[in-house]
Amino acid sequence: MTKRVDEILSWYESDHPGVLKNLRWMMDTGALAGTGKFVILPVDQGFEHGPARTFAKNPSGYDPHYHFELALKAGCNAYAAPLGFLEAGARTYAGQIPLILKLNNSDSLYSPKNPKPAVTGSVQDALRLGCAAIGFTIYPGSDLRDDMYQELREISEEAKACGLAVVVWSYPRGEGLSKKGETAIDVCCYAAQIAAQLGAHIIKVKPPTDFIEQDAARKVYESEGIPISTLAERTKHVIQSSFNGRRIVIFSGGEAKGADAVKEEIQGLADGGAFGSIMGRNAFQRPLPEALELLKSIQEIHRAAK
Amino acid sequence: MTKRVDEILSWYESDHPGVLKNLRWMMDTGALAGTGKFVILPVDQGFEHGPARTFAKNPSGYDPHYHFELALKAGCNAYAAPLGFLEAGARTYAGQIPLILKLNNSDSLYSPKNPKPAVTGSVQDALRLGCAAIGFTIYPGSDLRDDMYQELREISEEAKACGLAVVVWSYPRGEGLSKKGETAIDVCCYAAQIAAQLGAHIIKVKPPTDFIEQDAARKVYESEGIPISTLAERTKHVIQSSFNGRRIVIFSGGEAKGADAVKEEIQGLADGGAFGSIMGRNAFQRPLPEALELLKSIQEIHRAAK
Amino acid sequence: MTKRVDEILSWYESDHPGVLKNLRWMMDTGALAGTGKFVILPVDQGFEHGPARTFAKNPSGYDPHYHFELALKAGCNAYAAPLGFLEAGARTYAGQIPLILKLNNSDSLYSPKNPKPAVTGSVQDALRLGCAAIGFTIYPGSDLRDDMYQELREISEEAKACGLAVVVWSYPRGEGLSKKGETAIDVCCYAAQIAAQLGAHIIKVKPPTDFIEQDAARKVYESEGIPISTLAERTKHVIQSSFNGRRIVIFSGGEAKGADAVKEEIQGLADGGAFGSIMGRNAFQRPLPEALELLKSIQEIHRAAK
Amino acid sequence: MTKRVDEILSWYESDHPGVLKNLRWMMDTGALAGTGKFVILPVDQGFEHGPARTFAKNPSGYDPHYHFELALKAGCNAYAAPLGFLEAGARTYAGQIPLILKLNNSDSLYSPKNPKPAVTGSVQDALRLGCAAIGFTIYPGSDLRDDMYQELREISEEAKACGLAVVVWSYPRGEGLSKKGETAIDVCCYAAQIAAQLGAHIIKVKPPTDFIEQDAARKVYESEGIPISTLAERTKHVIQSSFNGRRIVIFSGGEAKGADAVKEEIQGLADGGAFGSIMGRNAFQRPLPEALELLKSIQEIHRAAK
Amino acid sequence: MTKRVDEILSWYESDHPGVLKNLRWMMDTGALAGTGKFVILPVDQGFEHGPARTFAKNPSGYDPHYHFELALKAGCNAYAAPLGFLEAGARTYAGQIPLILKLNNSDSLYSPKNPKPAVTGSVQDALRLGCAAIGFTIYPGSDLRDDMYQELREISEEAKACGLAVVVWSYPRGEGLSKKGETAIDVCCYAAQIAAQLGAHIIKVKPPTDFIEQDAARKVYESEGIPISTLAERTKHVIQSSFNGRRIVIFSGGEAKGADAVKEEIQGLADGGAFGSIMGRNAFQRPLPEALELLKSIQEIHRAAK
Repeated sequence: MTKRVDEILSWYESDHPGVLKNLRWMMDTGALAGTGKFVILPVDQGFEHGPARTFAKNPSGYDPHYHFELALKAGCNAYAAPLGFLEAGARTYAGQIPLILKLNNSDSLYSPKNPKPAVTGSVQDALRLGCAAIGFTIYPGSDLRDDMYQELREISEEAKACGLAVVVWSYPRGEGLSKKGETAIDVCCYAAQIAAQLGAHIIKVKPPTDFIEQDAARKVYESEGIPISTLAERTKHVIQSSFNGRRIVIFSGGEAKGADAVKEEIQGLADGGAFGSIMGRNAFQRPLPEALELLKSIQEIHRAAK
Repeated sequence: MTKRVDEILSWYESDHPGVLKNLRWMMDTGALAGTGKFVILPVDQGFEHGPARTFAKNPSGYDPHYHFELALKAGCNAYAAPLGFLEAGARTYAGQIPLILKLNNSDSLYSPKNPKPAVTGSVQDALRLGCAAIGFTIYPGSDLRDDMYQELREISEEAKACGLAVVVWSYPRGEGLSKKGETAIDVCCYAAQIAAQLGAHIIKVKPPTDFIEQDAARKVYESEGIPISTLAERTKHVIQSSFNGRRIVIFSGGEAKGADAVKEEIQGLADGGAFGSIMGRNAFQRPLPEALELLKSIQEIHRAAK
Repeated sequence: MTKRVDEILSWYESDHPGVLKNLRWMMDTGALAGTGKFVILPVDQGFEHGPARTFAKNPSGYDPHYHFELALKAGCNAYAAPLGFLEAGARTYAGQIPLILKLNNSDSLYSPKNPKPAVTGSVQDALRLGCAAIGFTIYPGSDLRDDMYQELREISEEAKACGLAVVVWSYPRGEGLSKKGETAIDVCCYAAQIAAQLGAHIIKVKPPTDFIEQDAARKVYESEGIPISTLAERTKHVIQSSFNGRRIVIFSGGEAKGADAVKEEIQGLADGGAFGSIMGRNAFQRPLPEALELLKSIQEIHRAAK
Repeated sequence: MTKRVDEILSWYESDHPGVLKNLRWMMDTGALAGTGKFVILPVDQGFEHGPARTFAKNPSGYDPHYHFELALKAGCNAYAAPLGFLEAGARTYAGQIPLILKLNNSDSLYSPKNPKPAVTGSVQDALRLGCAAIGFTIYPGSDLRDDMYQELREISEEAKACGLAVVVWSYPRGEGLSKKGETAIDVCCYAAQIAAQLGAHIIKVKPPTDFIEQDAARKVYESEGIPISTLAERTKHVIQSSFNGRRIVIFSGGEAKGADAVKEEIQGLADGGAFGSIMGRNAFQRPLPEALELLKSIQEIHRAAK
Repeated sequence: MTKRVDEILSWYESDHPGVLKNLRWMMDTGALAGTGKFVILPVDQGFEHGPARTFAKNPSGYDPHYHFELALKAGCNAYAAPLGFLEAGARTYAGQIPLILKLNNSDSLYSPKNPKPAVTGSVQDALRLGCAAIGFTIYPGSDLRDDMYQELREISEEAKACGLAVVVWSYPRGEGLSKKGETAIDVCCYAAQIAAQLGAHIIKVKPPTDFIEQDAARKVYESEGIPISTLAERTKHVIQSSFNGRRIVIFSGGEAKGADAVKEEIQGLADGGAFGSIMGRNAFQRPLPEALELLKSIQEIHRAAK
């Protein structure tokens, strides 16, 4: 019940006490308890990329219990996964770690021009499984974005009424954007803003690059001299774009890469004021001891950041 | 409780007292209290245009509390924004200023030929946040206009039953219209009429130009000699087209521009009998002292108008 | 409580007494009370054609109260309009004249190949406003006709259960028909039959021309020698096509024209057994005294018809 | 459409136009049309007292059509009865006279200490039968009064939403009162106040006697010198107790008695400002010519009252 | 399609055609087809009195198919039974004879002071079994009568909406009445009136005795000289009490007795204008040939009556 956690909770001023309870549960859990910082383990890649691409590197990950164990041992704040993975362990690990039920997911057996995840679970599922939050992905830039916003609106209204926190994966993608634009700084900030305006409690975005996608935005970045050359600067700008820091914004770890590359990226995010990381493949695709070591290092970086 | 406010309320003769209460709340708030005139602060551009284009010029605007403060200090009648922005301040400023929850919004990461905003909030949200009204945008001229009209019909029926006022942003746009036609005098009047027939309590349109879009309309403007050469004349005609002045019609401020240009436009609107202005970018993109000064001038112009 | 009114009511043998009450209310109102004949004032052109084209000729019509007054002074049987226009006067004129809430409307800012009106009100709206009936437009011939038929089916079922009468504007239009075919005698009769089969209590069609649209129909008209050369003959055939006269069929007045042309047309309709007229633009676009005079003449023509 | 009717309607300022339409229908019907006065025929005694006690005196009354005819011939403002009686004539007389569906009724085959009527119809029944209002009886003073108040609350909310007027029979009865107290002036005023506070549009009470039931009330009547010695004084006090005259209050005729006694009582009520009478047994238990004569006399008394 | 059947159907003027269809089906079935008279076989005694008391005398009756056969062979208008009995034969005899699903039943393993049957089936059951009507028992005089009236109200509204006819067993019983009073003429008439006011299409009562239960009623019977000394006179009075003959009233056969006693009673009922008999134990407790003979005699008596 530190002052920092209380401060963060104070930003969610229109939410029910039940939502605050669940946000606090996450912030009072694991190695970063009390700091207001987050390291979350997400494992939805089995659905998103297929099992072999996801679990073959470290076959322990085929077992749903493995990820509960990993998240617990690593001292993560929460563990996020689709319905099946959570159902397979929610009783054994009931109450040991906050769970986030990912309520929509895309597979990659078919890749349409304008992607949209399928809704694969319900608020009622999250309640019966004892979750702290629901997770939902939107794809700003897709022709189907409005359908996702409206699905989120409905699910989110229901979740909040039940005291569940709402975590939004805001991943720009689709016809409206170039491939490079998906992580452009202007697009990343816009995606964070959209998630915030849609009422997300926790916003998950990808680390932004220094590319600028939209001409109308470029004019402003130039005329106002917004600094975006370092990852720290860009991260700061994303946080600012999320209600000037009044919303928790965490950053995904992206594709698997070397431990040093991971730590360097995290350092940039932490320097820019990120609230933490949500790291899947770089965690569960490593052998357990390595994974634990890496996650501990990341926690240290986030803890050390002012 | 002035005679003018009572007169305006008398036009809404089929509405619940609860709706009248909320209309009165807006008309009894701020610098224009009691005059039946309006200056409303709307801040949905973070969603509509993205955060940098919207807030970089005056970075205080990244903070949701800033707009509540601005609206209060400037003596606005109400503050309108999407769900996230209102949730981020509704408790701190509860009851200090009437709030309008914008219930649908478009982002500009994808721009389809026939635009349609996503529904991003609910009447229930507006009630729990203590709002005075809901706001809804329609795009007459779009191939998807009927979907918007029907969404508005349902939301509006629910809102009115709960005593909330209904503010309709009627912005012609889409395949049926030329770019210039979006603010043509005939189209603007038609858009106001549609909003009124759909049951709007407050109608928001853009200041009309002297262009005429539709041939069938041009014939009537010429044969009947309807004067449309000055902004005052055109404004008068928009008001007339809104049930002969029996509905509150306010005008948007449009793109950011110089203070003198803003004031000149407002003078034209006021001379034509506008009920007021709803001014976003020209307010919050200026430094606070300038913004307050400009909003005060605008209020003075509206107050002075007969 | 004349025998003729009782006879007409006897045709609606499967309807609730509440529906009969509202049909009787219309037939016991105004200058034609007790005759079983109708002159109804419809004002939905503000939505359908835009305000200037509709009201500029007689600017009193911009004011919603004007049309209630016009209908009352002229002794019309009922006044029909969309939600906004009725809400703007329903309390002031409560119970003074039967109201028909037009539940769907099209604007003309966008003209798709296959038109379909938006649903702009509800049965609940009609009840709270104290209406006698709901009005609904279908466009037989449009690719979207079935959507309209199904909307009508649902709304009509709900309206009848609540004792409201159902008035159907059956206006052939869309890809399936030539422009000339929209008022062809075979098409007009077919449109009346469809409305009757869909369960309409009162059917509104346009005066039919002697053109025949469909080849399959032409063969029959010729082989059976169906007389269609005069408007009276064609009107008689429309009435016959509406359950052999067991449904009330009224005819629209169409575009504004000279008083003599109007009266001549009405005489033809009356000679053919029309139950009456529903006349908008030819009424409210004239100055009040002229409008009253014309409506009175029309009533006289209908009354005099056997 | 008299000024008096408009004045009365203006008191029901929070109701839908549909409710006003039905109140106006009653006030524009029959011999007292336009005066704002009422003579209503209620026939629920077949249910309340049994058929022989009710109809044997004038056996025509066994036939449900008889009462529709009586109400029409006598020029009553409305006819009130339970479901069965209305179903048996609603089609034949559809729209000829406003109907009030009595939604709860007590039989007298069992007389519990604390009576409560059974709910015997629904708002939907009232709509399908084309009624103008629903009627509901409450027994203030009964141990079960709160159940009745709550039933009334729910039914009344539904009825008002559908535009139906609500007529409340407020008949003190039960353990809390002496037999004499059931018509005591303090109790009668209290019963009228309760009905008004529960949202009744029209309140029906029994003519009050000069007896005072409650000690606490007696003190005030004496200290304030409230005049209650004549029926006119007492009636005036009942009207005052019903929102100072802002609700329509009508008085029951009570048990069958001589025509002179009836007229004398009506004169007292009329002198005190009663809005009218609701007279059952004194009407339908007389032979038709006598009944018509008596009802006409009563109408004359009410009309003559200022 | 005789005139008499049409006349009877005309009394049900507020009902759906579907209800009329089912009433006509009963009146067009069996030996009395076209006469407007009824002999119905009811077999709910297995539930009401237990199987041995009911079926041991003629063990064929244990078999549910037996009663379908009996009703068919005897030319009954309809067969009435609880859910189980109907489910056991409804497919085999589908469409061969109108079925009445008895929707509430009492067993006699427990006999409370204030009896109330359990609801043992639904309108949906009646629809899926192809019934013509639902049957429902009320006990006027019981402390729980209002609960039964309200159950009937709800079930009846649903049944009528689905086009099912409503048959009410109105059997006075309970604390409010002496044992002798249960069949007293005043009570029987009152019970018939209550059923009619509750909206029953067919009313079933017991043959009344010349006893008068209630003092208030006795006064009227004496002062008005209502003749009640013969069963024919009493029957006539019951019919009169059922909306002056505008509702179908049938009489139960009561306890098993000798064939002559049965026939004598039927003769009295028929002379008084009864619409028919509903006879259970006197039918199915006799051997088949005797039962058929008796039922034929009864039909002859009813047919012969004017």
